[in-house]
Amino acid sequence: MIIQLEKNLTAEQKAVLKDKLKDIKYTINEVKTQNGHYLIGIGKQEFDIRSIGTLPGIRDIHRVSDAFKLVSKKWKVEDTSIDLGDGIKIGSGQFTVMAGPCSIETEEQIDKTINHLLQNGVRIMRGGVYKPRSSPYSFRGLGIEGLKLWHQKARTAGIKIITEVMMTEQIDAMADYVDIFQVGARNSQNFNLLDALGKVDKPVLLKRGISGTLEELLQAAEYIFSNGNEKIMLCERGVRSYENAYRNMMDINGIALLKDKTHLPVIADPSHGIGLRRYVDKVALASIMAGADGIIMEVHEKPEKAFSDGQQTLSFPEAKRLYSRMNQSYRLRESFEMDLVQGLF
Amino acid sequence: MIIQLEKNLTAEQKAVLKDKLKDIKYTINEVKTQNGHYLIGIGKQEFDIRSIGTLPGIRDIHRVSDAFKLVSKKWKVEDTSIDLGDGIKIGSGQFTVMAGPCSIETEEQIDKTINHLLQNGVRIMRGGVYKPRSSPYSFRGLGIEGLKLWHQKARTAGIKIITEVMMTEQIDAMADYVDIFQVGARNSQNFNLLDALGKVDKPVLLKRGISGTLEELLQAAEYIFSNGNEKIMLCERGVRSYENAYRNMMDINGIALLKDKTHLPVIADPSHGIGLRRYVDKVALASIMAGADGIIMEVHEKPEKAFSDGQQTLSFPEAKRLYSRMNQSYRLRESFEMDLVQGLF
Amino acid sequence: MIIQLEKNLTAEQKAVLKDKLKDIKYTINEVKTQNGHYLIGIGKQEFDIRSIGTLPGIRDIHRVSDAFKLVSKKWKVEDTSIDLGDGIKIGSGQFTVMAGPCSIETEEQIDKTINHLLQNGVRIMRGGVYKPRSSPYSFRGLGIEGLKLWHQKARTAGIKIITEVMMTEQIDAMADYVDIFQVGARNSQNFNLLDALGKVDKPVLLKRGISGTLEELLQAAEYIFSNGNEKIMLCERGVRSYENAYRNMMDINGIALLKDKTHLPVIADPSHGIGLRRYVDKVALASIMAGADGIIMEVHEKPEKAFSDGQQTLSFPEAKRLYSRMNQSYRLRESFEMDLVQGLF
Amino acid sequence: MIIQLEKNLTAEQKAVLKDKLKDIKYTINEVKTQNGHYLIGIGKQEFDIRSIGTLPGIRDIHRVSDAFKLVSKKWKVEDTSIDLGDGIKIGSGQFTVMAGPCSIETEEQIDKTINHLLQNGVRIMRGGVYKPRSSPYSFRGLGIEGLKLWHQKARTAGIKIITEVMMTEQIDAMADYVDIFQVGARNSQNFNLLDALGKVDKPVLLKRGISGTLEELLQAAEYIFSNGNEKIMLCERGVRSYENAYRNMMDINGIALLKDKTHLPVIADPSHGIGLRRYVDKVALASIMAGADGIIMEVHEKPEKAFSDGQQTLSFPEAKRLYSRMNQSYRLRESFEMDLVQGLF
Repeated sequence: MIIQLEKNLTAEQKAVLKDKLKDIKYTINEVKTQNGHYLIGIGKQEFDIRSIGTLPGIRDIHRVSDAFKLVSKKWKVEDTSIDLGDGIKIGSGQFTVMAGPCSIETEEQIDKTINHLLQNGVRIMRGGVYKPRSSPYSFRGLGIEGLKLWHQKARTAGIKIITEVMMTEQIDAMADYVDIFQVGARNSQNFNLLDALGKVDKPVLLKRGISGTLEELLQAAEYIFSNGNEKIMLCERGVRSYENAYRNMMDINGIALLKDKTHLPVIADPSHGIGLRRYVDKVALASIMAGADGIIMEVHEKPEKAFSDGQQTLSFPEAKRLYSRMNQSYRLRESFEMDLVQGLF
Repeated sequence: MIIQLEKNLTAEQKAVLKDKLKDIKYTINEVKTQNGHYLIGIGKQEFDIRSIGTLPGIRDIHRVSDAFKLVSKKWKVEDTSIDLGDGIKIGSGQFTVMAGPCSIETEEQIDKTINHLLQNGVRIMRGGVYKPRSSPYSFRGLGIEGLKLWHQKARTAGIKIITEVMMTEQIDAMADYVDIFQVGARNSQNFNLLDALGKVDKPVLLKRGISGTLEELLQAAEYIFSNGNEKIMLCERGVRSYENAYRNMMDINGIALLKDKTHLPVIADPSHGIGLRRYVDKVALASIMAGADGIIMEVHEKPEKAFSDGQQTLSFPEAKRLYSRMNQSYRLRESFEMDLVQGLF
Repeated sequence: MIIQLEKNLTAEQKAVLKDKLKDIKYTINEVKTQNGHYLIGIGKQEFDIRSIGTLPGIRDIHRVSDAFKLVSKKWKVEDTSIDLGDGIKIGSGQFTVMAGPCSIETEEQIDKTINHLLQNGVRIMRGGVYKPRSSPYSFRGLGIEGLKLWHQKARTAGIKIITEVMMTEQIDAMADYVDIFQVGARNSQNFNLLDALGKVDKPVLLKRGISGTLEELLQAAEYIFSNGNEKIMLCERGVRSYENAYRNMMDINGIALLKDKTHLPVIADPSHGIGLRRYVDKVALASIMAGADGIIMEVHEKPEKAFSDGQQTLSFPEAKRLYSRMNQSYRLRESFEMDLVQGLF
Repeated sequence: MIIQLEKNLTAEQKAVLKDKLKDIKYTINEVKTQNGHYLIGIGKQEFDIRSIGTLPGIRDIHRVSDAFKLVSKKWKVEDTSIDLGDGIKIGSGQFTVMAGPCSIETEEQIDKTINHLLQNGVRIMRGGVYKPRSSPYSFRGLGIEGLKLWHQKARTAGIKIITEVMMTEQIDAMADYVDIFQVGARNSQNFNLLDALGKVDKPVLLKRGISGTLEELLQAAEYIFSNGNEKIMLCERGVRSYENAYRNMMDINGIALLKDKTHLPVIADPSHGIGLRRYVDKVALASIMAGADGIIMEVHEKPEKAFSDGQQTLSFPEAKRLYSRMNQSYRLRESFEMDLVQGLF
């Protein structure tokens, strides 16, 4: 159960409420976020929702039987919109593109990518400075110095930065240079990292685990939310499967389901979702028709020379063509939704 | 290697050719289909393609290193078009819808479904009369009598029939009443059935196995083709995965890849691909953007009363809305392809 | 629900029983097997088991809530023993080895294999004469002539034959030359084949599907049983997974579970279960400790020259060493079970 | 390539060596561990191993083409033995049992568990004080205070402690109270945590990821080793699969393969490997026959009252019976290996 509390709730009122929940043997989690103040009650006993809901100090009360609570659409039906400033918003009717290289490599690469984004109206740049790599002997990123250089150039150009954070110790140092913290697939259930990101006032893009379930992804988001940060995006990036014809199996079903279960924006990553440049466009367009609020994709001036992930990275001309197609596809999807709103169906 | 033979090839010319292949230690498979006459050579030795390709009696020769040969796009670059008669064609620029119930149940159900299809311009009706069921105690279909009844009504309405065949013994009895034979996921590697369908002059829709690889699907199609029947469609219907939030995991990547690897039409089955009515439309539209040539979907006047698969079956109004959206999505995709043809990109 | 009927049940008594079941809205499946006569009732309504169980003509009645009925241990608690004649029994305290090549290749190969088996006290020889192959251009077996030759030699040596049947049309022709019909992983849900094997009075070894669930395997066995044939063995042979370090992932858990859920013998196939010769012995021994009643394994005089599956086939000396280890492991497992019987634990 | 350096190698000798590697375009990673000093060269160019191997300052040189290097058996053929002190060793011919509850819960629970272990000669106790939980609202462990209490009692009893560490910040505080650090499945690719554990002089048990490949597990171990800590155990604990009849699918094949690829000890976790108490014994015994050096398992005085994982936890009497069976199984396996050593086969 989720109880939304009034802002001016008194300590006494809260105590009464907590007693009431203890009476029906519910454990209580008190959550304060940027936007609200909640009591999350976990229990199994049946109860009369009115007997609690009419107590003073309560704004609203909802039964939520899902394994996740605050990220569920069952209590918050309107979609969440995340504001990055400078007129850039994600979710709730906005279509977002985030593009850039797998790894931040050189100053020249940053310049060329920013230039490409500016020419195409893309406002958010992706890129890794801390790279999770299977082997300790692989390139692991330029680190904080690379981030600072990138930030300086991006700010000047009016471009926002999304980049991966791998450990709690990095958060503070990175926070000034990052617009969206990305949690990678391998850290999707790194609960301490999620806890810590819940205490930051920055948006977080949370990738699905390598074979994570949708429920696990939503519960991982619940970690961030219940620690105080409501600005969360979920990212479908394909899952591991028995099929070896491509890198990951993009879970288009997952996008459709997530959009139905949660109010959080859902971003699709077609680059990792199939892992082969030749098909990234089709997977991106399919993701949009399945309901994605945005696309995060890998682009590089010379994909074949990229330090990592070159085989799934688009060249600038390929990306340009895709931006246009994505916009058209999104507009078509919007028109379907409009029909619904206008009662045409 | 694939050698396309001249129609008027002499026995002598063929003998010379076969000797040539034996010389380089290739095993030879002679294939005659509705449209062509081929020698398929399997071997590893390097050879000078001109030394064979210039022999008399040869129309063309191609190296095909894939595990599948005749279904590969490497030798036949134009897409296959399958003609069902009455102006109904599948593949190669046509968008096809096949709709109908999971199981053929009653005369009334047939009538209502045909009526629904006619009203919406759908020309092909799906439905099972032989049902593969996990339990021997479940409803297993109306059998041949159901098929005859259905056929009589469909022919009158100008509607084509696609239905599943489960064993070789059924083929002859069914052939007069069927326009497309469907091979189900559980029979995707029933090689004797594939052999037998290769000897029939009827189109075949071949479903991917429950956890079949794309290569296995293409090799299964090769069974049909190499037995003489070129009229094959492939069907992506989702695969088994660890995720329990839905029935199967629709493999959108698979659609994109198949369209690139084979000249055969690719049909998507969003009903089985996710298994939940609520999301069938999104999965259908995503499949189209990924490159599908058509959609096969379950519709029923009263899905909640269907003998089987009700939870993934659309009602008539839901289906009507989806037909329209699918057409719009297909036209958008076509416009992207047009841009390519016209060199706009 | 399973109702075991008396042998001398009268038609009247049966009619009364059926009416009773119709009253509680159960569908009725009447099953006659080599050993028994049953009514299988499928329904959801609660009922008083005594009100039916005390009717005349009933030997016993059981509630079985599983998706499978006659193969469940819930009504038949003693393990099934399958008698092949000549003192060879499978299941219920017997440890069985079936060994031989993937494919029957030549007369010499048959002779050498039989000789090897005789020297090591192995009484059942495996080998394929009809081979399911992914590609139509691969070797597909010697067919019925190969089987006849093999049978002649095996009978002389007192060796029993297990071989795969791929289609119903083959059953009659094969029946005289086969001691156990094997159903391969790709045919694990070929329901027509299962139906037909249910009408034969020969033991059947049923392999788990390539990604088959344990419940599907048990339901597939139910097809055979409910058509009249109780002589069924189940075979765990590994399942498809994301891991590419070996061919299949042996499901040791599946062996433990099956032994708990069904009274049928469970045979393990370590050759396919891992697909790499180097580890077949460990997988075989592990399977025994998990509860397997027997092992089916690939051996060949010269594995590196085998027509198929050479990479997972043991040489004769490797096999000899494994036979001895398997016997010791089985005896150890038996001693654990003895402790239980004697109440030592 | 792995170059083992002499202890008294001079700076000059090292410089010569590094230049030599740069000449053939190998990247160089210098690794110092508790036991050795290595240069790891990563590159693709062919080279004459003698031209490097004969340089002064080199103890040994090995080509290792695997994706993992220092943990490979290709350069270190003898099995690693890990010494916990007090006569307790793991690996290389020792059979190890680690048993205890999922979570450390109460002082009484600690006492009873220690008592049970002492009575059965088990020297290592498992238990979680930091619990990774899918939901933020679940019990997350007693934390450092629980660990201190447990440590005090375990030390008195002569029992060693293995417990999970979830983040780098916990390492220092825990180090004095822990004998083996466990890395959980969800942190199997938490590379920063692996880096940090490589700098600690404590043994680490590294669990395979939820759908981790064996190669990823070995590369994760390489992170620890290449940061300086050679005392690593790998743990097979089952992987995620499509099968819902149990929690995870125990990968017996993985145990057999790991023992062949690495010199590190391999521990099996049958509790998580199947997740159902009823079958834990069979999975444990199977794991031993597949080659495991030890078993980590969940026991609890009252499994049905455990805070977590009760459904897969053995009671004390069940555990006692299994200890005995495991010892017998291990002795049998040893006798097989002895036969090999003595040339009986």
